[in-house]
Amino acid sequence: MSQDAAGSEKVYVIGHKSPDTDSVTSAIVYASLKNALGKWNFIPAVAGEINNETKFLLEHFNVKAPEKLADASGRRIILVDHNEAAQAVDNLDKAEIVEVVDHHKIGGLQTGKPIFFLNEPVGATGTIIACLYEQNKVKISKEVAGLMLGAILSDTVLFKSPTCTHKDKEFADKLSKICGKDMHDFGMELLKAKSDIKTKSAKDLLMNDFKRFDFNGVKAGVGQIEVMDLKDLEPKRAAILEEMKNLAEAEKLDMVVMMLTDVMKEASDLLFTGNDRAKSGFEKAFGGKVSNNSIYKEKLLSRKKQVVPPLEEAFK
Amino acid sequence: MSQDAAGSEKVYVIGHKSPDTDSVTSAIVYASLKNALGKWNFIPAVAGEINNETKFLLEHFNVKAPEKLADASGRRIILVDHNEAAQAVDNLDKAEIVEVVDHHKIGGLQTGKPIFFLNEPVGATGTIIACLYEQNKVKISKEVAGLMLGAILSDTVLFKSPTCTHKDKEFADKLSKICGKDMHDFGMELLKAKSDIKTKSAKDLLMNDFKRFDFNGVKAGVGQIEVMDLKDLEPKRAAILEEMKNLAEAEKLDMVVMMLTDVMKEASDLLFTGNDRAKSGFEKAFGGKVSNNSIYKEKLLSRKKQVVPPLEEAFK
Repeated sequence: MSQDAAGSEKVYVIGHKSPDTDSVTSAIVYASLKNALGKWNFIPAVAGEINNETKFLLEHFNVKAPEKLADASGRRIILVDHNEAAQAVDNLDKAEIVEVVDHHKIGGLQTGKPIFFLNEPVGATGTIIACLYEQNKVKISKEVAGLMLGAILSDTVLFKSPTCTHKDKEFADKLSKICGKDMHDFGMELLKAKSDIKTKSAKDLLMNDFKRFDFNGVKAGVGQIEVMDLKDLEPKRAAILEEMKNLAEAEKLDMVVMMLTDVMKEASDLLFTGNDRAKSGFEKAFGGKVSNNSIYKEKLLSRKKQVVPPLEEAFK
Repeated sequence: MSQDAAGSEKVYVIGHKSPDTDSVTSAIVYASLKNALGKWNFIPAVAGEINNETKFLLEHFNVKAPEKLADASGRRIILVDHNEAAQAVDNLDKAEIVEVVDHHKIGGLQTGKPIFFLNEPVGATGTIIACLYEQNKVKISKEVAGLMLGAILSDTVLFKSPTCTHKDKEFADKLSKICGKDMHDFGMELLKAKSDIKTKSAKDLLMNDFKRFDFNGVKAGVGQIEVMDLKDLEPKRAAILEEMKNLAEAEKLDMVVMMLTDVMKEASDLLFTGNDRAKSGFEKAFGGKVSNNSIYKEKLLSRKKQVVPPLEEAFK
């Protein structure tokens, strides 16, 4: 730990790169909880551009967007909504990680000292933090409730995702009462904001919610865009594929997958580009052949639960 | 995941190799909590021989020792009191890890799916599990309370270790009332059982509570024995050193450290053997020169908090 960080009392609470709503709001509400519990100054931060859905949510509850942190060097850091260095703000290895609160697979993080690390297999980090508010008997304000509800609705795709658990529904219900928002109506508003792709370039769409993985030596990137109707994406499909190929080449990735997810039909078109080894693993993972650059899967909504585990297994 | 485990409903709850009291009792009481909460069959297990202190505690509360599990292949596993594969039962990479409850540094574990992973910087895993009983509103029996109290008293060396927190004391107090044991008197009984070294060989003493680490490429093993008076260990010191050298050679370790800890004086004699790079790091970590094969440190009781972090730092 550098002298700088050791002498400072600031702790940055930050989600993953290509931040989604759960990442951004979890940083805000967890910093708020930690500040309520005392010592040190907890500052919410983001590791990338805030997307349309999150902007809509923050504006709706009149909450300021967190500051952007580009480099973690010499900082004290709390990771929310991710626990893998590959998905984190740059130079995490030069920071002191003081806590982790997440709901993803465990990704090989190491620390020098024991820390609070809570990972739960639920639909949203927002659910875990809402529960921590309760356990610590800290009052949940209307704004905090609204942000956590938004995170749960967004990450579980209105409770449709297979990642969604009873606990997510239970807390969404409580939060909905605190912030006075009907879950279904508010969820549709968020989805509409998320699906607003008109102003976005193909590259924006690809990088909007993009995560990097290492599957047993196979370097991969998996992006996702959720829309209310896949037809809206048809005009951009070729350009997205082009951007996927450019990215694979520029970053020497073995494969890039882009999930075009239709949240109404609850299906995803899995665009693929990559080398032969990657392609054979991808086809094994999803039990089909790549045709027209993709495999189409019914009942597939979740990268975390339905895309990453079969890829991990296929490359074992 | 193999077919065998996927078809089975058994889940083994298991602590680290060279199990100490916290590891053994945490396996028992966490399996009991999980069984109370339903689905699957949770079975406590141990990854090595049970020590004298733990035997005393189990006999005292008339609790059966867990079965020994030598190989995790194809099993569903919950890790308690450790989260590093290097300290775990053999073939953990061929098992499905379904949960982790621990209080150590985060050690690079990876899973294919999101799991419940709770690590807290408190003195004993027993404290964390006692809190989970409360949160899940599961009644704590006299026996379960006694085992968790024993784990806390043992791991915090009667609250003297720098790893001990307010939360450990709070739960020890509650558990003491449930099991009807005076904390101080019961702690001294446990210490006496732990310090019973008469029947032990030098090799037994070394391996009794031994953990392996990788400090930036430096392969290390760190053992600890706690006694009421260091003089009791004097006749075995040379033989322990000899066993340390044998072990370093047999397992190609760069260094072996043995903490001879005097719990009354709250000090440790840190025996050392290893190559030149390791020696220079060891001396840097503890701010002294190795003399008569050791560095003696006042106010040093905890491997987790006072030995592992300075070694990590020294080899960075």
